[in-house]
Amino acid sequence: MTYCLGMLLHDGLVMVADTRTNAGVDHVASFRKLRVWEEPGERVLILLSAGNLAITQAVVSELEDTVRWNDGDERTHPDAGPIMQVPGLTAAAKLVGEAIRTIHDRDAEALREQGNDFSCSFLLAGQVKGGPMRLFQIYAAGNYIEASEDTSFFQIGETKYGRPILDRVVDFDTPLVDAAKCALVSFDSTMRSNLSVGPPIDLCIYRRDSLESPIKRRLRADDPYLVELRKHWGDGMRQLFHDLAPPPFVESFLDLEGTVEK
Amino acid sequence: MTYCLGMLLHDGLVMVADTRTNAGVDHVASFRKLRVWEEPGERVLILLSAGNLAITQAVVSELEDTVRWNDGDERTHPDAGPIMQVPGLTAAAKLVGEAIRTIHDRDAEALREQGNDFSCSFLLAGQVKGGPMRLFQIYAAGNYIEASEDTSFFQIGETKYGRPILDRVVDFDTPLVDAAKCALVSFDSTMRSNLSVGPPIDLCIYRRDSLESPIKRRLRADDPYLVELRKHWGDGMRQLFHDLAPPPFVESFLDLEGTVEK
Repeated sequence: MTYCLGMLLHDGLVMVADTRTNAGVDHVASFRKLRVWEEPGERVLILLSAGNLAITQAVVSELEDTVRWNDGDERTHPDAGPIMQVPGLTAAAKLVGEAIRTIHDRDAEALREQGNDFSCSFLLAGQVKGGPMRLFQIYAAGNYIEASEDTSFFQIGETKYGRPILDRVVDFDTPLVDAAKCALVSFDSTMRSNLSVGPPIDLCIYRRDSLESPIKRRLRADDPYLVELRKHWGDGMRQLFHDLAPPPFVESFLDLEGTVEK
Repeated sequence: MTYCLGMLLHDGLVMVADTRTNAGVDHVASFRKLRVWEEPGERVLILLSAGNLAITQAVVSELEDTVRWNDGDERTHPDAGPIMQVPGLTAAAKLVGEAIRTIHDRDAEALREQGNDFSCSFLLAGQVKGGPMRLFQIYAAGNYIEASEDTSFFQIGETKYGRPILDRVVDFDTPLVDAAKCALVSFDSTMRSNLSVGPPIDLCIYRRDSLESPIKRRLRADDPYLVELRKHWGDGMRQLFHDLAPPPFVESFLDLEGTVEK
C-alpha cells in the first residue's frame, strides 16, 4: 500500500508520499513515489503515484522517454522528455492520462490473465510559466479531476486513517507551514494504523508563482522533527481524550452497584 | 455504509452502531443495526450488523424465527427463537454463521444476477450463564474470529476514519467509561469524514459476569453530551495542532525571500 497527499493552497503546493512498497510481508521495500521535473523560471511539475509499482514506473518512463520526440534517436536526458515540453498543467495531466492508457494497452490483459487488476493512480501538480498553479488526480482509466478552492487536497492509496485531521485543519487559506505540519500528522496517523505505509516520507513544497525549485525533504523514521511530532501528537491526543467529560449515562450506570439502569 | 464497533474489555463489553442506511443519496434512512437478546440472570447477546440491509435483516429473522423449533407451529415471540436457546457464545457465533449460509443459499445467486455482492458482516458478543464473556466477528462466508486480550476491539463497515483514536487509547484494561467515551470519539471522527455514517448512534454496555440487562442508549445528533464531545474534541484537536512546532526546514525555506533552499 501507499499513501500520497497533494494540497492546492493559496500560497502554494504541499505534496507528500511515503516510500514503502509491499508484495506480501516478506517483500517490503522502499521506492520513490514522488517525482519532480523542473526548469527554474520555466516549469515545476510534481507527480505522486500509488498502485502497482511496475505500472507506475512504466508510466513515469513514458513521461520521461524522449525516443519518440527525437526522430528515433536513442534515449536522451529525462529533462528533455515529453513532460518537459507540455505548455501547461492541463496538457501535463492529459499526457499522464495518455501514458497510463499506453501502458494499459500493453500490460492490462497480461495482468488480468494472472488475476491482477490494472491498479494505479496519480496526483500531478505544478505550474508552467504564464499559467496557473494546478493540482490533478488522475485515475487508472486515464481521466482526471482537478482540485479547487473548495476541495483543497487530494489523497490516493491508503487515504482514510489520515483524513480526519485534514478535514479539521486544512482549507485553501491554510499557510504552507501549517499545511506541511498537518500533512506530517496525517502521515503519522496512517503509519500508526497501517504497517504497509512507512517511512521515509518524501515531502515537497512549492511556492505559488515562484517557478523556483521547490523544497524537497526526505524524512526518515528517526528524523528528529518527526520523532518529536509523533510524541507530542500522541501524548496530546491522549491528554485531550483524558480531559473529555465521561458519558454521564455510563457513569450513573456504573455507580449503581447491583441496580441496573435501563 | 455503516460503522459498528465492538470492544471486549476486562470489565465488560462496549458495542456501538450508527443507524444510517443508504442506497444512493436520495435514499438515506435509519435502521437498527444493534440488537440485544437477553434473559436477565441467564444470557445477554448483542449483535451488530453491516452490509446489505436485506441480507442482515434476513439473517436476524433466521436467528429469531421459532417455526422450525416448534413443530411447524406459527411464529412465536422472538424471545423463544434459536438464538435464545444456544448453550454459549461459540454456539451463538456458529448459529449466526449458519443463518448467513442459509440466506446465502437462498439469495446470493439472484443478487449476483443483478450485479450485487452478497455483502454482510456481524459482531456478536455477550455471555451465557456459566460461560465466559466473548466477542466474535462473523464474515459473509459464515466463518468467524474471536477477540482476545491482545485484540480488544473489532470494527466492521466504514472502519478506518475512526481507528486512529482507538489504536492510541483502547486496550483490554481500559475502564468501561473510557472505552465508551473513546467509542463516541471514534464515531464522531467517522461521521465527520463520511456522510454515509450518521446518527442516531446506538450504544450498549455490558458489565462482565453481571448477566444483567446492559445499558442501552440511543444518541441523537442533538444529544447534549454528543454535541459537547464534538465541540471539545474538535477545538482540542485544532489547539493541539496549533501548539505543535512547525517543521523547521519549511520555516527556513519560507523565510528566505528570493532565495530557495534546496
